[in-house]
Amino acid sequence: VRAEVVAIGTELLLGQIVDTNSAWIGEQLALSGIDCNYQTRVGDNQERIVLALRTALARNDAVIACGGLGPTQDDLTREAIAEMAGVALVRDDEIAERIAAMFRSRGREMAASNLRQADVPVGASPIPQTRGTAPGLVVPVGHKVLYAVPGVPHEMREMLDRAVLPDLRERAAARQEAAVIRSRTLRTWGMTESGLAEVVAPRVDALDRALAQPDHGPVPTIAFLASGIEGIKVRLTVKAPSQEEAEAALAVEEAEERALLGDVVFGVDGESMETAVARELLRLGLDLAVAESLTGGLAAARLVAVDGASGWFRGGVVAYATEAKRALLDLPDGVPAVSAEAAKAMAAGVRRRFEAAVGLATTGVAGPAEQDGQPVGTVFVGLALGPASSEAEAVELRLPGDRERVRQYATISALDLLRRRLRALTP
Amino acid sequence: VRAEVVAIGTELLLGQIVDTNSAWIGEQLALSGIDCNYQTRVGDNQERIVLALRTALARNDAVIACGGLGPTQDDLTREAIAEMAGVALVRDDEIAERIAAMFRSRGREMAASNLRQADVPVGASPIPQTRGTAPGLVVPVGHKVLYAVPGVPHEMREMLDRAVLPDLRERAAARQEAAVIRSRTLRTWGMTESGLAEVVAPRVDALDRALAQPDHGPVPTIAFLASGIEGIKVRLTVKAPSQEEAEAALAVEEAEERALLGDVVFGVDGESMETAVARELLRLGLDLAVAESLTGGLAAARLVAVDGASGWFRGGVVAYATEAKRALLDLPDGVPAVSAEAAKAMAAGVRRRFEAAVGLATTGVAGPAEQDGQPVGTVFVGLALGPASSEAEAVELRLPGDRERVRQYATISALDLLRRRLRALTP
Repeated sequence: VRAEVVAIGTELLLGQIVDTNSAWIGEQLALSGIDCNYQTRVGDNQERIVLALRTALARNDAVIACGGLGPTQDDLTREAIAEMAGVALVRDDEIAERIAAMFRSRGREMAASNLRQADVPVGASPIPQTRGTAPGLVVPVGHKVLYAVPGVPHEMREMLDRAVLPDLRERAAARQEAAVIRSRTLRTWGMTESGLAEVVAPRVDALDRALAQPDHGPVPTIAFLASGIEGIKVRLTVKAPSQEEAEAALAVEEAEERALLGDVVFGVDGESMETAVARELLRLGLDLAVAESLTGGLAAARLVAVDGASGWFRGGVVAYATEAKRALLDLPDGVPAVSAEAAKAMAAGVRRRFEAAVGLATTGVAGPAEQDGQPVGTVFVGLALGPASSEAEAVELRLPGDRERVRQYATISALDLLRRRLRALTP
Repeated sequence: VRAEVVAIGTELLLGQIVDTNSAWIGEQLALSGIDCNYQTRVGDNQERIVLALRTALARNDAVIACGGLGPTQDDLTREAIAEMAGVALVRDDEIAERIAAMFRSRGREMAASNLRQADVPVGASPIPQTRGTAPGLVVPVGHKVLYAVPGVPHEMREMLDRAVLPDLRERAAARQEAAVIRSRTLRTWGMTESGLAEVVAPRVDALDRALAQPDHGPVPTIAFLASGIEGIKVRLTVKAPSQEEAEAALAVEEAEERALLGDVVFGVDGESMETAVARELLRLGLDLAVAESLTGGLAAARLVAVDGASGWFRGGVVAYATEAKRALLDLPDGVPAVSAEAAKAMAAGVRRRFEAAVGLATTGVAGPAEQDGQPVGTVFVGLALGPASSEAEAVELRLPGDRERVRQYATISALDLLRRRLRALTP
C-alpha cells in the first residue's frame, strides 16, 4: 500500500508554519510498513486542493489530507473532496450534535459556522472527533481511499492512531504486504555526532557484512540524528516479515550499541533525560529540589512533566535576582552569583529549604552580556547529594549558542550530571 | 511568476527530518511577491524525482529542487534533471577544481565520488558553490526554469539569496508582476476560532466589497490560525505594487481589527504573551515574582526567556509538594492546596518572599487523577497586585486536554490574566 500525505493550508506555503504534521505522519507510515513516496502541500484554494488530491490519488493507493477542516471560510477540504468525488455535502446530525455538545460542556456559545464541520460528502464516513470540533473523513474512491484529518497536531495524531493507521494496516494485510518496518532510537548526551559515528563504526561494518550474506535475516541500519537540546539520536531501523522478528533484531543491535556507548545512552525512543533522572531517583528512593538561576524554571518544568513527579519532586526556587539567591538559598555575602561556590551553596541551600535528599542548582551567563567577569556560555551546575548537609560539588561548563540555547543546554546538562551521579549510587 | 518547491530526500518522507527548508523558501518567495501554490516532497528515487519535477513544471513557471546534490549514491537530483530534460551530464572542470581546492584547504583527502558533484546537464549553468562542495544548477526548460540547490540549510539559503531569488524577481519584473506580498499576524488569547471569525465578519465583508470595486488598491485577506498554547493567530496578508503600499494597507486593517477585537489581541507577529507582560511591567515600573504548583516552572521559564528579564523579574518558587507551599509561601494549614484561597495565599506569599510589587500564582489539577475533590483541568490563578500586602484575587479556570496541555494552558492563561490586569493600571 502506497500513501501520499497532502497537507492543506496557505500558512504552510508561506512558511508561517513548518509542516511537522507531514513529518510525523511519514514516520508513522514507515513504522506501519506503509510506503510513502510523495508528500504535497497546497494552499487554501479549492481548485488547487482538488488538483492536488487527484494527482495524489492517481499515483497512490491512499491519500491522507491534513488540514482545512475548521469552521471558517478558508477551510475548504470538505468542499474540495465533494467536488473531486462529484458528490454533494450532506449535514450529519450526529456529528452536529457532538459539536453542539462540546460547546455546551465548555459553557461556550456556538457560532453557526461550526455546523459546517458536520457536512459529510455523500458516500464518505465520518471519523468522530474526540478532541477538537472537527471530525475526520474516510472517503472510498473506487478501490482506493482518501482520509481527511484536522491540521491541529494533537487532534490529527489521535485520529491517525485511532482510525487511519489501523485501516491502512488492514488494507496492507489484505494484500499480504505484511512486512513491517520498526525502529528504535537510542538517546545520547555528551558526545558529538562524529564522535558517536567513530565509536559505532565497528557495528556499521558488521551490519554491512551481514547484509552481504545470501539469505540473511533482518539486518538493522544505523542513522544519526542531531536533535539539538534533546541530544543526538542513534536510530536503528529494520524491515522484517513480522513484528516479533523486527523487535528481536532491534534488541540484539541495541545491546551491541549499548556495549560500545556505555552511559552516554540515557534513554530509548520517547524517554527523555528527565525520565531517566526520575527512574534513578525512584530506584534509590530519593527526592529532589532544584535551584535555578539562568535556567529560570526550565529544569523544574521538565521534571514536573514526568508522570508521577509528585512522588520524588519537592519543588524549586527560581532565584533570578542575586538578592533572591541570598535570601532564599542562603548564598553567602561576597560570593559572586556566577561561580562554582555559588552553585554549591545554592544546591545545598535548596536541599535544606525543601528538606529534600538531593539538591541540584544552575547558575551562569546566558547572555547577551558577560556577568561577574565570566563570558557568555559559562555555566556552573551544583549538586548536593552526600550525607553532610553542607557537602556539595560543582561542575563548570562552557556552552555554545545564543541566550535560549545556552539555557536549554544548561538544563539538560544539569539533569545529565545528576543522572550520572545517581547511577553510581546503590540504594 | 508561480514557483513550486520540490524537496528531495527519503529522510523527509520518513519523518526523520522536518522539512524546514521548504517553509523558509516559501517565506522568501512570498516576500519577493512570487506565488507558491504547491510544495512537494519526494524520496531518493530517480524515476519518482523525474515525475515530481515534470508535474511541478507543468503547473508552474519555475521549480526549485532542493536536496539530492551530495556526493553519495543516493544523491540523484543531477541524473533526474538530465533524464527529465533528455540531455547528458558533462563534467565541469572549473567546478571540479573548486571542489578539489575546498578539500585541499581543509587538509582533507577527497573521495573520487565527490567529483560527481561537478556533473552538469547539457544546457544548464552551474551556480558556483561558496560554502559546501555542491554547486547549484539553473536549467532552462523552454520559457520555464528549474533551479537545483543543496539540501544543507545554510548552503541552500545562501544560494537562494545570491542566485535564485534575484533571477525569479527579474523574471517577475520582465512580466511586470513586480508586486510584493506582506503579512502581519495579530496574536490573540481568550476567544475560540469561530468566535473570532464572528467578531471579525464585518471586516471580511468589507474587504470582499472592496475587492469587487473596479481599480481597487491593495486589499488584505484575513485568515485564522489555531496555534494551540500560543493562542489563535489572525493573519492579514496583502499583495501590493510596493512594500510601502503593502505596509500601509496592513496598518489600516490592523487598526480596524483591533477596534473589533480589543484586548483579546496581546501581540503582533513574533510577540509572545510573556513579551506583552514584560511591556506592561516596564510601562508601570513594577517587578514580579511567581509561585507555581501545577505549572511547575513553566511560567518562570517563559518570563526568563524575555530579553532584559532581570530588569523586572525577581524569581519564583515551584511549590510542588503541599508542605513546600506551607513552608515557603505561608499557605495556612487547613487550606486545600487546590483552591481559590490557596492561589491567593501563594500569590501574596511569593510577593512577600521576593519583595516584589506583583505576585502571580498557579495551583490546580493537571491530572491524570483528580485532587482535593477537584476534577482534572481545574486551575486557580492567584494575583497579588493591590497596595495591601495580603490583598489578592483568584480566578478559576476549567482547562481541556491532557496533563501537558493543562499545564501549558494554565501557564499562558495566568500570564494573560496578569497582562489584562496590568493594562488597566496607570503608572
